[in-house]
Amino acid sequence: MRVKLEMPNLLGKFGEIVGCLNRYGCEIVSSSLLKVSTDKVIRELEIICLEERQREQIIKVLKELKDIKVLKVIDKTFELHEGGKIEIVNRVQIKDQNTLAEVYTPGVAKVCLYLKDHPEEVYRYTIKGHTIAVITDGSAVLGLGNIGPLASLPVMEGKCMLFKEFAGLDAFPLAVNTQDVDEFVEVVKQVSLVFGGINLEDISAPRCFEIEKRLWEELEVPVVHDDQHGTAIVVLAGLINVERLLGKSLRDMKIVISGAGASAIGTARLLLKYGVKNLILCDSYGAIYQGRKERMNPYKEEIASLTNPERLKGTLSEVLAGADIFIGLSAPNILKPEDLKAMAQDRVVFALANPDPEISPEIALPLVRVLATGRSDYPNQINNALAFPGLFKGLLEAKAKKVDEEVFIEAAKAIAYVIKKEELKEDYIIPSMFDKRVVKAVAQAVVKKLTKPSKSLN
Amino acid sequence: MRVKLEMPNLLGKFGEIVGCLNRYGCEIVSSSLLKVSTDKVIRELEIICLEERQREQIIKVLKELKDIKVLKVIDKTFELHEGGKIEIVNRVQIKDQNTLAEVYTPGVAKVCLYLKDHPEEVYRYTIKGHTIAVITDGSAVLGLGNIGPLASLPVMEGKCMLFKEFAGLDAFPLAVNTQDVDEFVEVVKQVSLVFGGINLEDISAPRCFEIEKRLWEELEVPVVHDDQHGTAIVVLAGLINVERLLGKSLRDMKIVISGAGASAIGTARLLLKYGVKNLILCDSYGAIYQGRKERMNPYKEEIASLTNPERLKGTLSEVLAGADIFIGLSAPNILKPEDLKAMAQDRVVFALANPDPEISPEIALPLVRVLATGRSDYPNQINNALAFPGLFKGLLEAKAKKVDEEVFIEAAKAIAYVIKKEELKEDYIIPSMFDKRVVKAVAQAVVKKLTKPSKSLN
Repeated sequence: MRVKLEMPNLLGKFGEIVGCLNRYGCEIVSSSLLKVSTDKVIRELEIICLEERQREQIIKVLKELKDIKVLKVIDKTFELHEGGKIEIVNRVQIKDQNTLAEVYTPGVAKVCLYLKDHPEEVYRYTIKGHTIAVITDGSAVLGLGNIGPLASLPVMEGKCMLFKEFAGLDAFPLAVNTQDVDEFVEVVKQVSLVFGGINLEDISAPRCFEIEKRLWEELEVPVVHDDQHGTAIVVLAGLINVERLLGKSLRDMKIVISGAGASAIGTARLLLKYGVKNLILCDSYGAIYQGRKERMNPYKEEIASLTNPERLKGTLSEVLAGADIFIGLSAPNILKPEDLKAMAQDRVVFALANPDPEISPEIALPLVRVLATGRSDYPNQINNALAFPGLFKGLLEAKAKKVDEEVFIEAAKAIAYVIKKEELKEDYIIPSMFDKRVVKAVAQAVVKKLTKPSKSLN
Repeated sequence: MRVKLEMPNLLGKFGEIVGCLNRYGCEIVSSSLLKVSTDKVIRELEIICLEERQREQIIKVLKELKDIKVLKVIDKTFELHEGGKIEIVNRVQIKDQNTLAEVYTPGVAKVCLYLKDHPEEVYRYTIKGHTIAVITDGSAVLGLGNIGPLASLPVMEGKCMLFKEFAGLDAFPLAVNTQDVDEFVEVVKQVSLVFGGINLEDISAPRCFEIEKRLWEELEVPVVHDDQHGTAIVVLAGLINVERLLGKSLRDMKIVISGAGASAIGTARLLLKYGVKNLILCDSYGAIYQGRKERMNPYKEEIASLTNPERLKGTLSEVLAGADIFIGLSAPNILKPEDLKAMAQDRVVFALANPDPEISPEIALPLVRVLATGRSDYPNQINNALAFPGLFKGLLEAKAKKVDEEVFIEAAKAIAYVIKKEELKEDYIIPSMFDKRVVKAVAQAVVKKLTKPSKSLN
């Protein structure tokens, strides 16, 4: 944070400010004198605080200081966002008229006519072969809810940055200006030609399920709603390593998921596909079971018919008793220590609500065999960025037209097996998102799955 | 062009090929031996020919040579298109977890919430402030006709390159997968949020008129169909310099336009707005006049009601008699020397059909006072690239929500006045598209027009 302050031109005034900041645990990184007159000076200070929330407090304190005027507060996050976060550049330099005549008219006409007769070559001669759309309707952005497509753009640009940084793929953010399912599906279909893959982002449940289902049926480009499948893949990767660590199959474990939104339903479906037998979802009303009447929707109905084989009813705490694994994709601080203690031996807790997990890691850690969270400041961070870069890299390499849960399972296995059997331990069941082996392993697994002659999706 | 040839391993064989290429006016730039066996060798040759059309001939000749096998022909244009021509890069480097936490979660949430309350700041904190959509439906691509959106992609990417090269703007190509007007308009509306401007490209007439009209009414982002207005602006710029050169007003001149497509109608409308009084359009059926029954559409009807005040009928040649200015936006070689001779003194001919003009420049030049074409190998090249980069640069700088013909006229004036009065001459009425002053002058004129307090479009 940088602040511009006007203060009296008096010896000791600056020292007073430094002291005040220090008392609140903040430090001045740099300071420059912008203007001096006989009675006043203007200084710009760059301040670092240990915690984000101190900023507000510091500004308030500075404003309350006698004789000091806060002229401007410059936030580094906003500074980083100035002008947006991505840029489009030319891969071929237009050095002269000759190059211009090849990349544009008249030369380009040859390539167009060739593509007209060989449409599959679009992957080779246009950006399609390495370009992803990051598409949202802004209906469920981060934890902020339905802030609309315009306000969601910084997140979409950030997601595009991750594609570049982690997978070397080009991604462009499209915030579609409608939250009508039919209209949204139509727009995505109409603009999909130039993209080799479509990453749906931050679309609210249950709308996201219908949108994706229809796009899977109607589009010739792989579509992945990352909130569902990115999470599902990384959770499954973690659970595969739980299997390896404990020497026990997920088929034989009781798993409870808290949540019935995009990521929870997506994760449940993938676990079922993987072979999990005893799975129970809970929403804020309690266990979801076949025949429940309250607060259902077609997607909860469907999941109810596939899970909770004993039709358990009751609260999350009640259902959790005796469970081997808890997966939280819901809300902060909904679990108590007693809930964990009531689970089976060697219990595994994935408390993934962000930024505040279902139970504080400090409380949970002594009570469980394995703990994973969504946070970077604890071990076993479950982060979608472990899945989507390699997944799309593989899909594009394979020029895939479709994707399905069998591919997601291969991606999950690839993430899991980046960690060797002998390296596996309770606080290392998930590789770091900065581990460069992950993207490569996932992409290879996806390509292998999709190009296996027996069962190609293309 | 590079070719890979297999030939007998015999002394003199290579010399035979070199001699053969030379006889056709082609030269070998480089040659490398790829494989040698006792009886055969494989060589790769890089060949330059003086003219594009020689390539086909040379390949044919090589194929017919005894003992020579053409294994592969590699075209430089195709090579330049490998992997597409643009790329998306990060403007902020993700150096570490801290930066990640500012460009993506959790930091980005602050920016999202700020935009939710201050939507106009999207120009500042996202790519909207410098990003253009280049959108087509592939219905009228270059001179190739309706080759469809997929095959049009290389042109759209090329256009995006020009935005970057000439104006430093970022542009992304969207080929919309529908040629239904309603659907197309809907898609453009839905995806427009992230763009500061929309460049419609290569959409067939008369559909393009309705599409643009509706988008002008319904969108809060400036929309320019470049085929219409890019051409119109540069033609008007040329004509303004004809006024300055001849000391005569366009109001007092008879102007005939050949063509009734996007660029012809766009140009006619702009000339009318500028003040031209005696304007006649001709399509392949002849002069367009109010009341004509044959081959009309609503847009020809409209232009008929605004032009041809004397309701002249007849062929292009007939109508052209006595005209001061001819503007060809139609088809190659439709004018004869006699047609030009029948025009007024000091006649001006803009023969803009591409690549072959309405009359060969060699024939026209001795017969006219001023000649302009669309070609780079003659003086006075009328090229849209003189208009659209500066136009959009200005629109984005002004954060314009709309654009109109008054803005186009200012852009045309700005292009014209890059040439000083004393520099103006018959073969220099239009600046070069590589003249860096043009973009700057056009952008400034557009900003000035749009931010004039009296008559803002915002």
